[in-house]
Amino acid sequence: MPLYHAAIQDMQFVLHDVLGVANQDIAGYGDLDESFTAAVLEEAGKVARDVLAPLNASGDREGCHLENGVVRTPAGFKAAFEAVKQGGWTSLDCDPDYGGQGLPYLIGTAVGEMFISANMALNMYQGLTHGAYSAIHAHGTAAQKATYLPKMVSCAWTGTMNLTEAHCGTDLGQMRTRALPQADGSYRITGTKIFISAGEHDLAENIIHLVLAKAPGGGEGTKGISLFIVPKFLVNSDGSLGARNGVSVGKIERKMGIHANATCVMNYDGATGYLLGDLHKGMRAMFTMMNEARIGVGLQGYAIAQAAYQASLAYARERLQGRDVMGAQNPSGPADPLIVHPDIRRNLMEQKSFVEGARALTFWGAMLIDRAARSGDAQAEGLISLLTPVIKGFQTDKGFEMAVQAQQIWGGHGYIEDNGVAQFVRDGRIAQIYEGANGIQALDLVGRKLAADGGKPIMALFDMVKTFLKENEGDARMAPFLGPLKAASKDVQTGAMYFMEQGAKNPNSALAGANDFMHLLGHAVLGLMWARMARAAYASLDAGRGDAAFLHGKITTGQFFMARCLPATALHLARIQTGAEPVMALPAGAF
Amino acid sequence: MPLYHAAIQDMQFVLHDVLGVANQDIAGYGDLDESFTAAVLEEAGKVARDVLAPLNASGDREGCHLENGVVRTPAGFKAAFEAVKQGGWTSLDCDPDYGGQGLPYLIGTAVGEMFISANMALNMYQGLTHGAYSAIHAHGTAAQKATYLPKMVSCAWTGTMNLTEAHCGTDLGQMRTRALPQADGSYRITGTKIFISAGEHDLAENIIHLVLAKAPGGGEGTKGISLFIVPKFLVNSDGSLGARNGVSVGKIERKMGIHANATCVMNYDGATGYLLGDLHKGMRAMFTMMNEARIGVGLQGYAIAQAAYQASLAYARERLQGRDVMGAQNPSGPADPLIVHPDIRRNLMEQKSFVEGARALTFWGAMLIDRAARSGDAQAEGLISLLTPVIKGFQTDKGFEMAVQAQQIWGGHGYIEDNGVAQFVRDGRIAQIYEGANGIQALDLVGRKLAADGGKPIMALFDMVKTFLKENEGDARMAPFLGPLKAASKDVQTGAMYFMEQGAKNPNSALAGANDFMHLLGHAVLGLMWARMARAAYASLDAGRGDAAFLHGKITTGQFFMARCLPATALHLARIQTGAEPVMALPAGAF
Repeated sequence: MPLYHAAIQDMQFVLHDVLGVANQDIAGYGDLDESFTAAVLEEAGKVARDVLAPLNASGDREGCHLENGVVRTPAGFKAAFEAVKQGGWTSLDCDPDYGGQGLPYLIGTAVGEMFISANMALNMYQGLTHGAYSAIHAHGTAAQKATYLPKMVSCAWTGTMNLTEAHCGTDLGQMRTRALPQADGSYRITGTKIFISAGEHDLAENIIHLVLAKAPGGGEGTKGISLFIVPKFLVNSDGSLGARNGVSVGKIERKMGIHANATCVMNYDGATGYLLGDLHKGMRAMFTMMNEARIGVGLQGYAIAQAAYQASLAYARERLQGRDVMGAQNPSGPADPLIVHPDIRRNLMEQKSFVEGARALTFWGAMLIDRAARSGDAQAEGLISLLTPVIKGFQTDKGFEMAVQAQQIWGGHGYIEDNGVAQFVRDGRIAQIYEGANGIQALDLVGRKLAADGGKPIMALFDMVKTFLKENEGDARMAPFLGPLKAASKDVQTGAMYFMEQGAKNPNSALAGANDFMHLLGHAVLGLMWARMARAAYASLDAGRGDAAFLHGKITTGQFFMARCLPATALHLARIQTGAEPVMALPAGAF
Repeated sequence: MPLYHAAIQDMQFVLHDVLGVANQDIAGYGDLDESFTAAVLEEAGKVARDVLAPLNASGDREGCHLENGVVRTPAGFKAAFEAVKQGGWTSLDCDPDYGGQGLPYLIGTAVGEMFISANMALNMYQGLTHGAYSAIHAHGTAAQKATYLPKMVSCAWTGTMNLTEAHCGTDLGQMRTRALPQADGSYRITGTKIFISAGEHDLAENIIHLVLAKAPGGGEGTKGISLFIVPKFLVNSDGSLGARNGVSVGKIERKMGIHANATCVMNYDGATGYLLGDLHKGMRAMFTMMNEARIGVGLQGYAIAQAAYQASLAYARERLQGRDVMGAQNPSGPADPLIVHPDIRRNLMEQKSFVEGARALTFWGAMLIDRAARSGDAQAEGLISLLTPVIKGFQTDKGFEMAVQAQQIWGGHGYIEDNGVAQFVRDGRIAQIYEGANGIQALDLVGRKLAADGGKPIMALFDMVKTFLKENEGDARMAPFLGPLKAASKDVQTGAMYFMEQGAKNPNSALAGANDFMHLLGHAVLGLMWARMARAAYASLDAGRGDAAFLHGKITTGQFFMARCLPATALHLARIQTGAEPVMALPAGAF
């Protein structure tokens, strides 16, 4: 079974050498010195390795079971989740007014990576609770916050998000779940929601469902939608649990992966719900949760790839098969380890350079979220808004692809479930689908984010690249980074320009190229991350700081990414520039 | 649950309009007129749709079970396999001397596509038998052929291939299974083989295992390996079944997919085996089986994609979600079908253009096999030898990618096992791994096939492209095909040249680019297929022959492939040209 070890050295490198977190002018960041983050990350790494990872395969095998309306999670999950709660790992970046530790979102992100790599299904119970916490924190009344947040910060109560119905996922305007206002100000919620992760389970005393439903008077489509808090058990005025609410689990789904997280059909049968935020403004409130969830899913994308990479690296070192064509590396053994072979090395380098690039991008994104939230920085807000669909869509597509590559290194043994790598492929697949399928992420990027605020965020990104190129042009060692970065950035600009020119005449041109643009921009920002990492590594080497072998490895891995992976931008641009015609020419009936 | 309908119109188009099979100077091809092939394909399509496809999902869910040394296949499999046998579908291209129908391999390939799309796991029992039949047919003594072939042609007895051991898959030189010669000329086989598909089951009276083992005196490595026939039940001189042989199933594997095919650990405990072919020349004999198996796996690659495509197309037409940005297409309904959206259309076009291109390539490959076998044509032999790793490696990589895309169209519903598309992803995954993992295919291509026979096969392919370009340069309608084909062919040549120049100095340069070269060549030959299909479609349109809507659709789909997919050759070339340095620079210990 694959072992998991948290990539603490790399996380520390990103936090301190690349992002320089302790010197950022963001409230709370002053505390993030190297020893503090090392202490947090090391403790979290132990929980991931010793508490969560050992249950990953067994949880997958056993799955969740629904019996008489109760969902039983796999053996060991309850104790492990208790350990997570007791360790304070659910409250890291939550508001101290409600029992949180007030740490930056960035720290929660780093810890989240570890917990996901170790056990994605178990981490989802906590992740969804955090999303619901954020929605209530942003939109709830003082009374609602006081009632729910302390319990959710500790995960004594967990949370869910209820959007999808059988006939509508993306197109929520078709929603049928209804909310009828009651004399006491509450609502009666009736309808059926599907794909509700952690909708029912045995890990918490209460479950706080956030439910989208249509209340009278809001009009057609998404305009009539409001968001409601629907607790599994009603909460008495003293905070104790009251009567069971009219919400129940109808069935749990048989899925390709994340077997240990119960995906539920939830039946709301006149359940008592409380309006969260403004009436008929439910979509906006839900997006507080959704944007956070999308970053969390992008985190899953590379965290799963990280776990799969470790499993494939261990196998590549241990499995003896064939000989190095340049001369035996293990002459006394029956064969050389797989890692001597160039095609295996190519595979591993693609995985490694993706995971480390994505980690840097996600951590940077988390820092932008902190900067926006804690310093009210509008530029940071705009930038993370632009990057969110890239982090979600690009990272989960690539993360899945990399998990498949990791499985490939295991050969036939990778197809056998007992060896554990197949699970990474099956689990990672969902991240491309939920919280807005990746096609929707691409449309969000091209249709909204690119032109948002007059295009300021994307222009800021171009300026960042330009400044970086200028600042580093004197350093010959940086040449392998600057040229490819410049080319990739130009490809992004050309693609964006193409959409602007075509968009007015033919919106389908942008839509037909949306997926390619998401991948084009994803590659380019990973290129920027690698260029920054290389500069940081050279700076540390020049100053005689840090672990030289690690820093040289960083530079070498970056050179691989720039040479071998970044040229994909040209292909994506070429595809974009073919426009809508090739895509739309075949009549729908002729497929 | 996805329905399956055989793509008979497209198969007929490839057979007659593109390949002109009835006019080929190959023994037996004269009978292949349109009405004959239509009759065969229609009958086979009914078996696929009515007998095999209905058991695909249930077989996956139920899986195989090992009880007291006996493997039970899923409910319905026995009756379905009987129907396949009774219908004569196992004997299509087998030698009439042993009860076969003597039809071309090409016909078996077309029928094979249907049976795989409908039920890959069930078809494997038959496919492996065919491989073992071919090995005995090519290397067996007259007595061996008389004993085994008639029963294997009818699948009364099925076959297996036993190569892999727990510690060695690719590197068979490490093999530990031993064969001890006996006084009567037989051998005693002792050892344990793993990953033996259809190693034990309840679908046949006897199972004929072909087993690689080391007999004394052959020396080290693969040189000492011989191939043996090891029947589950020994066969009496009158052809009746005798004593149980010393071979038994140790366990069956829990796998990611193909649950309905039993993947067995086989224990040989002094089992009686009969030498097949020459002593210590077992690898050569096994490759008869292996080359056929690789084409069969390449067939699986796109056949699974075909089934997944159909499932995703049906869903894209039926699922109502969102509105066409150019104006509602289903104004009286709550929303438009998914297929109106450009990103869905892009996804479907990628699937469709891959599947149809791969079908043309595979059918052409099958015709080359017939030409080599029936006409002793050395050029055809060289060309199919070159194309085999492309058909196996490229088609299974892309086929899997396309199955993943098909699943994506289903959104969250695609992740739910009950809807059937997830199975295509799980089943299709194995095709990238078995019969030589795709990394091995790439090495075979670059390390052996490219330079084979002084490079004549690849030069023949370049000439074919050149001739095609010349023949069609006067037809302006062909311009969208000729330019991209020329560019792709040039990319292949540049890549091959790079390997030749670098290879002598640094073999790792070729090895590091092997995977990209396989994909580069794969794209280019699919481009050639599409150019041929477009020309054939124009020819039929000009002559007023055939279904005009179908032919126009063909051209449009080809234009999509040339514009959107073929430019990937430039990326693969760019990656190849970075050489070994970026791939090998990081020390193995620094990963």
